[in-house]
Amino acid sequence: MEKEISQAVIRRMPRYYRYLGDLLEEGVERISSNDLSSRMKVTASQIRQDLNNFGGFGQQGYGYNVSFLYDEIGKILGLDRTHNIIVMGAGNLGQAITNYMKFERLGFHIIALFDSNSELMGRKIRGVPIYMVEELDAFCSANDVDIAALTLPKEKADAAARHLVDLGIRAIWNFAHVDLNVDERDVVVENVHLSDSLMQLSYNIVRNSR
Amino acid sequence: MEKEISQAVIRRMPRYYRYLGDLLEEGVERISSNDLSSRMKVTASQIRQDLNNFGGFGQQGYGYNVSFLYDEIGKILGLDRTHNIIVMGAGNLGQAITNYMKFERLGFHIIALFDSNSELMGRKIRGVPIYMVEELDAFCSANDVDIAALTLPKEKADAAARHLVDLGIRAIWNFAHVDLNVDERDVVVENVHLSDSLMQLSYNIVRNSR
Repeated sequence: MEKEISQAVIRRMPRYYRYLGDLLEEGVERISSNDLSSRMKVTASQIRQDLNNFGGFGQQGYGYNVSFLYDEIGKILGLDRTHNIIVMGAGNLGQAITNYMKFERLGFHIIALFDSNSELMGRKIRGVPIYMVEELDAFCSANDVDIAALTLPKEKADAAARHLVDLGIRAIWNFAHVDLNVDERDVVVENVHLSDSLMQLSYNIVRNSR
Repeated sequence: MEKEISQAVIRRMPRYYRYLGDLLEEGVERISSNDLSSRMKVTASQIRQDLNNFGGFGQQGYGYNVSFLYDEIGKILGLDRTHNIIVMGAGNLGQAITNYMKFERLGFHIIALFDSNSELMGRKIRGVPIYMVEELDAFCSANDVDIAALTLPKEKADAAARHLVDLGIRAIWNFAHVDLNVDERDVVVENVHLSDSLMQLSYNIVRNSR
């Protein structure tokens, strides 16, 4: 597990995890790489190559044990532990993320939201309290925070990210429409730029209509 | 403009557009590929290569005209026209998307939400009406709909997508945590799988702490 695995491979792992979870729900105990391949619409050789990065998991003539592979990929993705999340910005997007139950089932627990709007003070979203930003430092000293989700305006996001890193937070899930200037050796950043994805859609609409 | 441009290049274009927009706001009229390179933290040769896919735009010894390049990339991305969006699912995520003003500025107009929950009937989100799903077919005959955003549970998403395609919609912005079985020759799908992005973050947290 020591060698560096490409981010392209990592980006495909959640999809494997999702398909294996669906198979488990359907009661499927084992699956050949060919069957998994036709379900997922990727080649069997791609599947074998991807999984070989982590040591394989398949057996010749048997295929993959669904439950075992699901658990192993879960471990690779860090889903065998819980991750505490705080949400910076309790606007619509912050509230939507907090309300999204699926993350809980994957071991991601949203434990607090922070906002500067005093009208939100003391309110709760699905039982999760909204605090004022002034309370952030004390909260982070008193609680284990693994991930900060940034749903702030882009003007505020970069300063907030640097402050969170100073507070010891090492992972940022960035919804603000800006690239963050944090040291990427220490801090992992995952960007969800919704406008960018809408623009890719729009590019492909225009291309198809040409 | 006839040759096929790789999706990897397309995925980088919104980021150029964003940086050029910021430069415009700052009043910068022209920029060398070296300066753009150090701002964006990509190599100048990458920038030149990317833009050469669309015919260049730079002038030796002058660099790029910011406003011209911004407009040209906007055209490439289809932002010189408006796109009407309907949102399938008026839950938290559907409401958050509808409330996100930025999309409007890029020419994406959300014109309706649809839900099966009759408690939402007649309500509006930022002036955008919520209709019942029974009204979808009539709405789509009476209005130009370019894009459907799917914020539905995964069990409902695939059937909804196929129905939307039957109604003539050719672009789907999919937030449901499932791969859609629509014919990709005719229909463009852009997936925003939030759980997947959280898992990538979690993978990198675990790797960094090893």
